[in-house]
Amino acid sequence: MYKIVLLRHGESVWNKENRFTGWTDVDLTDKGVAEAHGAGRLLRREGFGFERAYTSVLKRAIKTLNIVLEELDLMWLPVNYSWRLNERHYGALQGLNKAETAERFGDDQVLVWRRSYGTSPPPLEDGDERLTVDDPRYATLPRSRYPRAECLKDTVARFVPYWETMIVPDILAGHRVLIVAHGNSLRALIKYLDSISDEDIVKLNIPTGQPLVYELDADLRPLRSYYLADEDVIRKAEAEVARHGGPRE
Amino acid sequence: MYKIVLLRHGESVWNKENRFTGWTDVDLTDKGVAEAHGAGRLLRREGFGFERAYTSVLKRAIKTLNIVLEELDLMWLPVNYSWRLNERHYGALQGLNKAETAERFGDDQVLVWRRSYGTSPPPLEDGDERLTVDDPRYATLPRSRYPRAECLKDTVARFVPYWETMIVPDILAGHRVLIVAHGNSLRALIKYLDSISDEDIVKLNIPTGQPLVYELDADLRPLRSYYLADEDVIRKAEAEVARHGGPRE
Repeated sequence: MYKIVLLRHGESVWNKENRFTGWTDVDLTDKGVAEAHGAGRLLRREGFGFERAYTSVLKRAIKTLNIVLEELDLMWLPVNYSWRLNERHYGALQGLNKAETAERFGDDQVLVWRRSYGTSPPPLEDGDERLTVDDPRYATLPRSRYPRAECLKDTVARFVPYWETMIVPDILAGHRVLIVAHGNSLRALIKYLDSISDEDIVKLNIPTGQPLVYELDADLRPLRSYYLADEDVIRKAEAEVARHGGPRE
Repeated sequence: MYKIVLLRHGESVWNKENRFTGWTDVDLTDKGVAEAHGAGRLLRREGFGFERAYTSVLKRAIKTLNIVLEELDLMWLPVNYSWRLNERHYGALQGLNKAETAERFGDDQVLVWRRSYGTSPPPLEDGDERLTVDDPRYATLPRSRYPRAECLKDTVARFVPYWETMIVPDILAGHRVLIVAHGNSLRALIKYLDSISDEDIVKLNIPTGQPLVYELDADLRPLRSYYLADEDVIRKAEAEVARHGGPRE
């Protein structure tokens, strides 16, 4: 039996300001930093250790991971960074807050983009400064494949190959794996692991900074999954995510 | 021509308390954190970028590197961690302060250990809790080769093969390399690069948190080297290191 831990980064500045974030590289808030320390301490208290860590190329996830590794006295652990673990790319919505988005596109349309598995938000156009194709962190991504916008289905399609080719071999080699990522890249992985339907996955709310343990059988099929924190803590955190709904992703 | 940057970690808690540190995994002080931010900002202001980073498995160096990478907006950069970049192992002196060491061994003996290139301090004995052979960060080091104490010559002997096999190929491949390490592991590298004599290398004082640039020719022979900060800043910092002398390493 294998055991892996998934963790959504702590609260970011744009989570707090209720803006669509996507691939925008915003920082953690003080609360987000505290959530990361809390996650690390909880993992330490429960005796978790890791031989491999995976995260995105976005600092809110990287900082969360660094803080967790510090709490676990594992700062020297080699980390794998990939854009394939990035948040879902929110296209032209990136940077807009809930009110701005509703005003510009209408509430119904926004709900479709948020709740539909296969409908992408409006794409970034050529020349948009949010199109960071020249950032060296995306040097391994062919320019023509840098996403202009993603629906959750697109996020699944780019995360799963990375899971299969990079993370699975580590798990099968006996390495204990920690994955620190984002609301929608974790939804993508969970959809794949638990075979969740297109309709149900968009309703899944993953709280920030709460370690989620997956126990997997020899074929890496989930045996069970659970948050490390007490149930009432998680229920409150999930409700918080659901209540804010909208942007924050 | 190639350009690399060497950086000694910011002030650590035991630098401040004037204790022999060696492989003890002590944290940065607030001043050390500030020094790391200063180094990162200076590198950014001077337009430095990197494709590869190397550091030890000790948190005072790793944290310094993480802070520098944050200032450079390069948190996603893959980092190579190795015990071969660790501080010189100070054996049974680790944890002792200047007064305790002088009292136990005499001032003259302490001076020999500090100023001699080839004389090791007293070794850690079996059962000493400072002998962290079971720490997973040393899993790639055969137990019998975990050092009980090192002279600077030993530090040179374990760093240079890593330089040759890991770092040199990166430099020749055109990657801009940042090395964040320790007073004596940097002395080891500088001795090798600049062919400094056994007598002179122990007198070289490397200030904490000051980026040191090496320009190398096609054969990786140094063309010139210089600190990025103004000369008077460096002269003051070197004097500070020299004045404290003794432990702090």
